[in-house]
Amino acid sequence: MQGNFTYHNPTRLHFGEEAMKHLVGELKHYGPTVMLSYGGGSIKRNGIYDAVAAALREAGKTVVEDAGVMPNPTYEKVQEGCRLVRDHKVDLILAVGGGSTIDYAKAVSASAYCEEDAWEKYWVKQGWPSCPVVPIGSVLTMVGTGSEMNGGSVITNRKAGFKLGKVFGPDLYPKFTILNPRFTMTVPQYQMVAGFFDIMSHLMEQYFAGKADCTTDYLIEGLMRSLVHSSRIAAKDPQDYEARANIMWTATWALNTLLKCGKGGDWEVHQIGHAIGLVTDATHGMTLAAVSLPYYRHVMRDGLHQFARFARNVWGVRPEGRSDEQVATEGLACLEQWMKEIGLVMHSAELGVTEENLQAVADAVLILPVGYRTLTRDEVVDILRQSM
Amino acid sequence: MQGNFTYHNPTRLHFGEEAMKHLVGELKHYGPTVMLSYGGGSIKRNGIYDAVAAALREAGKTVVEDAGVMPNPTYEKVQEGCRLVRDHKVDLILAVGGGSTIDYAKAVSASAYCEEDAWEKYWVKQGWPSCPVVPIGSVLTMVGTGSEMNGGSVITNRKAGFKLGKVFGPDLYPKFTILNPRFTMTVPQYQMVAGFFDIMSHLMEQYFAGKADCTTDYLIEGLMRSLVHSSRIAAKDPQDYEARANIMWTATWALNTLLKCGKGGDWEVHQIGHAIGLVTDATHGMTLAAVSLPYYRHVMRDGLHQFARFARNVWGVRPEGRSDEQVATEGLACLEQWMKEIGLVMHSAELGVTEENLQAVADAVLILPVGYRTLTRDEVVDILRQSM
Repeated sequence: MQGNFTYHNPTRLHFGEEAMKHLVGELKHYGPTVMLSYGGGSIKRNGIYDAVAAALREAGKTVVEDAGVMPNPTYEKVQEGCRLVRDHKVDLILAVGGGSTIDYAKAVSASAYCEEDAWEKYWVKQGWPSCPVVPIGSVLTMVGTGSEMNGGSVITNRKAGFKLGKVFGPDLYPKFTILNPRFTMTVPQYQMVAGFFDIMSHLMEQYFAGKADCTTDYLIEGLMRSLVHSSRIAAKDPQDYEARANIMWTATWALNTLLKCGKGGDWEVHQIGHAIGLVTDATHGMTLAAVSLPYYRHVMRDGLHQFARFARNVWGVRPEGRSDEQVATEGLACLEQWMKEIGLVMHSAELGVTEENLQAVADAVLILPVGYRTLTRDEVVDILRQSM
Repeated sequence: MQGNFTYHNPTRLHFGEEAMKHLVGELKHYGPTVMLSYGGGSIKRNGIYDAVAAALREAGKTVVEDAGVMPNPTYEKVQEGCRLVRDHKVDLILAVGGGSTIDYAKAVSASAYCEEDAWEKYWVKQGWPSCPVVPIGSVLTMVGTGSEMNGGSVITNRKAGFKLGKVFGPDLYPKFTILNPRFTMTVPQYQMVAGFFDIMSHLMEQYFAGKADCTTDYLIEGLMRSLVHSSRIAAKDPQDYEARANIMWTATWALNTLLKCGKGGDWEVHQIGHAIGLVTDATHGMTLAAVSLPYYRHVMRDGLHQFARFARNVWGVRPEGRSDEQVATEGLACLEQWMKEIGLVMHSAELGVTEENLQAVADAVLILPVGYRTLTRDEVVDILRQSM
């Protein structure tokens, strides 16, 4: 465990089929006005909206409706939410949905009373809130992003031409999150497996970084093994409660700041994925799936020891009599095999990346000076071409 | 992940060689009077006392000295601490030491303003505080118990003839903990490796329980592998910072409530260890070491699938062409080999268990109705005999 760090994660997680019974008690900690933020109408069709509304009524809350949060939430929508918060003096933002909705809620919370240009302050300059923030709670209906127990908030600004992430501190983490695996079971298969890969990507972004041999590496390997095991079951039978529950729990711990302790992270795959998402509006997890193998094959020699470890400890590749490079290569082949098995999009062309928009995607990629290798723009273009 | 549970752990951890620089900032959140609780004089010899005293001065605190917390803290000492808290209207208890000191601080915190018999209420009847509690902070100087980020408090009542554990809720968790691996480096080798086994025992108590195939199993395996790896390095070279840092982090996560999520736990080894500690005053981790192999060999057939998994996933035992029982048996042999390698006490006779006091030890063992098998008193005696 190298370096100095502070770990602090005060989010209260209520997990299980009966987790919703905690919602009324949680709501009682806040003032009378709750903004209910959600996406399309799916929570109205599957009964989750009704269950949440019943809890809000039982807790005696006044509800401000805030529907229509999109899969890649825009800064324009954030500004609408900010107006609602100010106009109604909202005491709590209750985000019901997947990571997009919770990311959006954090953006609104930090921006509603921000007297500067919030986009510039938080997402471009990566600054910290100096204004009051609005508490957030969440009811998770789709797993993957980890937003339910962290400060991450990815927002798309179409006017500026960027999709950028900001990681806020514990004041912006959800105060509580309801994690009922059954709530994730009506998500379509395509979105479900995209979420599975988002989890794997969070694990890989943190695993393939740092130099020391640290406890965090072992924790990540454990979560990867659990994810591979349960995702194989869930891809065949999405109604398998145990598998879906394991995946939900894995997703939360994959990105709640624990795994960056002593490690740092790479996050270049996410940058390339965000750029594809910006240009094509493709599903986040699928953009990561399409670029991961080309990216990791490109940087493998720069982190060979860790890629060989990944092969041995996650995929059970036997190292006897073979070079690290052979072992590492086989590990990535195992990753590819698993990705195909659970039904991921393996080519960015299927997501709408073309020879025509490829340069626009490359322009939108933020190149981070961390990880095993800092890419050049030419390398980004190369990786995008490989991914098609 | 079976069942329904709530995870909430708000302790703020400051980790690393520079972690102490956060102490002044943490102290500022509390009122003027701090009770400084610690054990023998070791922190005065190694400079930690001076560093803490300097931070207390810088934060402008009035210090109430509370020295002499013993390795197995007694309820009599707890009552002394309670008087100090009440007499001086203490605003924060700052525990500087190992798990014993932090366990003691929690006991004082919950008991100082308790109007009933605190021993009966908390340790015998496992009740919850209804009185105000005093906030706790900690500076950890010896790893093993996990007390720095949980509600555990093991107290010895010599008059009652019991050493009992109570697990308090998040209100009693340390508000903050300073984790500087260098602070653990002056602990004598015997205590150091005893702490290593305490960690392994926490992992095994939680691993060998529950029925489902859950993400927590994978997390535990990861922490076990990290511990085995780093403890081999540290037992040979206690000054290896990376190894000691990994072990410190593993210890915290081994018992901060994460690993009981979806699993439950066994904890019978701890009950037998506590009984030996009560009668002989032996070091906690060594009592666990002396009884673990006899206990696990005794219950192995009741949880065979998990013992075989332990062999494969933690120790790399190859299962091909062998029965689960053969694989599981080899796993426990690997555990034994590692225990000998790092220098643990393998026989309770070396800790003072004799044919004469064996019945007294057995009388003091709390038999828990959980885990793979509920022991009879005869089985407890058998296991104790095997351990000698």
